[in-house]
Amino acid sequence: MTESRFGMTEPEDLPDDLRDRVGAIAQKSGFIPNIFRALGHRPAELRAFLDYHDALMERKEGLSKAERELVVVATSAANYCTYCIVAHGAILRIRSKDPQLADQVAANPWQVRTAGLTDDEIWDVGAITALFAASNRLAHLTALQPNAEFYLMGRIPK
Amino acid sequence: MTESRFGMTEPEDLPDDLRDRVGAIAQKSGFIPNIFRALGHRPAELRAFLDYHDALMERKEGLSKAERELVVVATSAANYCTYCIVAHGAILRIRSKDPQLADQVAANPWQVRTAGLTDDEIWDVGAITALFAASNRLAHLTALQPNAEFYLMGRIPK
Amino acid sequence: MTESRFGMTEPEDLPDDLRDRVGAIAQKSGFIPNIFRALGHRPAELRAFLDYHDALMERKEGLSKAERELVVVATSAANYCTYCIVAHGAILRIRSKDPQLADQVAANPWQVRTAGLTDDEIWDVGAITALFAASNRLAHLTALQPNAEFYLMGRIPK
Amino acid sequence: MTESRFGMTEPEDLPDDLRDRVGAIAQKSGFIPNIFRALGHRPAELRAFLDYHDALMERKEGLSKAERELVVVATSAANYCTYCIVAHGAILRIRSKDPQLADQVAANPWQVRTAGLTDDEIWDVGAITALFAASNRLAHLTALQPNAEFYLMGRIPK
Amino acid sequence: MTESRFGMTEPEDLPDDLRDRVGAIAQKSGFIPNIFRALGHRPAELRAFLDYHDALMERKEGLSKAERELVVVATSAANYCTYCIVAHGAILRIRSKDPQLADQVAANPWQVRTAGLTDDEIWDVGAITALFAASNRLAHLTALQPNAEFYLMGRIPK
Amino acid sequence: MTESRFGMTEPEDLPDDLRDRVGAIAQKSGFIPNIFRALGHRPAELRAFLDYHDALMERKEGLSKAERELVVVATSAANYCTYCIVAHGAILRIRSKDPQLADQVAANPWQVRTAGLTDDEIWDVGAITALFAASNRLAHLTALQPNAEFYLMGRIPK
Repeated sequence: MTESRFGMTEPEDLPDDLRDRVGAIAQKSGFIPNIFRALGHRPAELRAFLDYHDALMERKEGLSKAERELVVVATSAANYCTYCIVAHGAILRIRSKDPQLADQVAANPWQVRTAGLTDDEIWDVGAITALFAASNRLAHLTALQPNAEFYLMGRIPK
Repeated sequence: MTESRFGMTEPEDLPDDLRDRVGAIAQKSGFIPNIFRALGHRPAELRAFLDYHDALMERKEGLSKAERELVVVATSAANYCTYCIVAHGAILRIRSKDPQLADQVAANPWQVRTAGLTDDEIWDVGAITALFAASNRLAHLTALQPNAEFYLMGRIPK
Repeated sequence: MTESRFGMTEPEDLPDDLRDRVGAIAQKSGFIPNIFRALGHRPAELRAFLDYHDALMERKEGLSKAERELVVVATSAANYCTYCIVAHGAILRIRSKDPQLADQVAANPWQVRTAGLTDDEIWDVGAITALFAASNRLAHLTALQPNAEFYLMGRIPK
Repeated sequence: MTESRFGMTEPEDLPDDLRDRVGAIAQKSGFIPNIFRALGHRPAELRAFLDYHDALMERKEGLSKAERELVVVATSAANYCTYCIVAHGAILRIRSKDPQLADQVAANPWQVRTAGLTDDEIWDVGAITALFAASNRLAHLTALQPNAEFYLMGRIPK
Repeated sequence: MTESRFGMTEPEDLPDDLRDRVGAIAQKSGFIPNIFRALGHRPAELRAFLDYHDALMERKEGLSKAERELVVVATSAANYCTYCIVAHGAILRIRSKDPQLADQVAANPWQVRTAGLTDDEIWDVGAITALFAASNRLAHLTALQPNAEFYLMGRIPK
Repeated sequence: MTESRFGMTEPEDLPDDLRDRVGAIAQKSGFIPNIFRALGHRPAELRAFLDYHDALMERKEGLSKAERELVVVATSAANYCTYCIVAHGAILRIRSKDPQLADQVAANPWQVRTAGLTDDEIWDVGAITALFAASNRLAHLTALQPNAEFYLMGRIPK
């Protein structure tokens, strides 16, 4: 795996709370998504990034989890962020149970429509777009490459 | 399947030569790519389009077939053409035997580099880009949707 | 005349059918438009390009021949294609019998309006725009210069 | 002739100095360029515009008069200003004694190169570009149409 | 003060930790910056946003605090974010002790240069740009207006 | 003060009429705005520029003087012209008696609205935008820096 200009940090070198948190994600998905290794050398920033992500993406009210990932893929495609399109495209396939939607949004992000949303949902769209404007740039900063596992995830019904 | 504004033409309604030609493609891939149904109502234009495509994409000299498809996917991604990205992404996976390359080029088409090409190969790149500048626009004109089969093609080694 | 990077092909070096075809055009206009000399080294591509052009631009139904050339000039101006603007501007002057229209469309291609067209005419506009998206790029690829004759053609009533 | 939204002012309704000045231009060219009729309702602005134009475009040192007009046509083409392209294209043909140059620059203004200029000539290029950034916008403001005479001027050697 | 579409949250309605945190900022600056009132209705998001901000902007190593604010103002100007330009322009004036720098960067953000930075500083620039790509969008989402106090802060030496 | 590539001209080296004119401005504002020193080496162009400026900006009818300066600041911000934003922002503060408006327009020039204007006022907006399209480019040409005095002017009520 190509090392980033800024180095990759393995879970065992993270502070305890982040090691547990990244470990739980790795156990669930079967591998460590590269984003955590690329941001790990600045634990305070990674921790805040994860907190912000979870507060917004794991929220119970408002948009469904699939809709949230759709906003992520569209934003990432508009910003040409390979890692985010591939990784969140995989999550979108799983959450939407639609194996084609992610590739369609990635191909043409400008076709997503937001008519008829409530104010609470509009905030979700706006805030997710904002968070991934940041996230996409961090992926560009680290020249982040998607883990191989993401490419096939969610494409074939189990 | 959504009917196009301009109608879809089934193979049996095409002139003999085009019916044979499209039929051979359908037999090889197992389904009729939608582009042929969308352009079929203007047989002379479809015939010339196919001739141009074959003269350029099936050429023996110059770029490899995988490299040609890579140029197609990059051009189509720059033009936000969903059909062309998905359909030619599938062909690129098969011709390059690389299940990840198409998604990477689709995510960020600006990263393709052309340094070190011969004049003959430069013509290939220029002419393929030109042909798919036309092809992408025809797909937009007909609001063409990719066949479901394209999404998974070439992702799993046989 | 400046030789293109890819060489210029004279009519006598073309396959029989293309030599006849280009010869007929040259006889009618009094000179060999440079586009044929620039594309001639790839006869199969030139043949398909001419077939596509004729199927679309010589079509009896739908847009008038002058309207088709107007779409060509507008597309070529939006793509900054000197050869296509000058050459098809000349044809537009002749077909529209309006010595000013081509220069106006070339100066500001965004002012062309397409309201009120039938579906058949919309296809013509879309397909002509698509074909010349390709054609403009081929002219850029070959750094094609307009023949001197085009500049004055159709400016003075006979 | 289409009246502008802001009205057209005939020479006889201009203050004496402007009537004389526009009259001299009309006598030389054989017709009243529409720009003077379109700006005439604000004499102080027209006078300053003409003074600025003459101070810059009639200057003896620095760029030649043909080079100055070439900068005008390139700027006007970049700004899609029909009046300025057609009118100053005519003047460029006359001053450069080249019947093709204006159409080439109008088709692709980005190809003009400025390498090797002196500081005095760089000022000329910068100041002419600036003045016609204003002039192009005034032509858009008034929806100015070129006089018919401009289209053919300078195309045929006398 | 104009209420945002999403409502404004006063400090007394925030969870204890955020009330203390925003209170400390308000005491130091003499007023409550509007950003805290606009984001307060989603405490988990505001908390993560503040954590991320502090981890990055209060960092001891790497760029100076003035340099960090300069990156913020340049990013915010490129994104046309009125609140962020005015509020962080004020902080930049105070941290740089230069009453003109903020207005210059706001007027032309593209003139900031980053040559000669260490990798650690490059991360700071990249991460600050990323964070404020998010922050600018949150300000647009809430149509945030700068507090009146920001406009004059740091302009006159004490 | 940084000398411009093209030299700075002091008032005493200007022709009599311009020396008086610039002198009157300097006396009123307490310093010589740098624009006059940067354009002074071409007196005929400076004179016409000043005439055009005064004919448009000192006009009694139509837009108020504050509204005219608002158009100047918005145009200059859209063109990233530091000198014009800072200098005319100062004048806008004085003429509008609003110490915040200039910074708001400079931060986001696209928010200015022109609905409900008369034709005479539309001309003013169009012509001021045109004149400062030229003026902004002259400031870029000379890499003009704002006088220090402009930054604070009009910020504190007398």
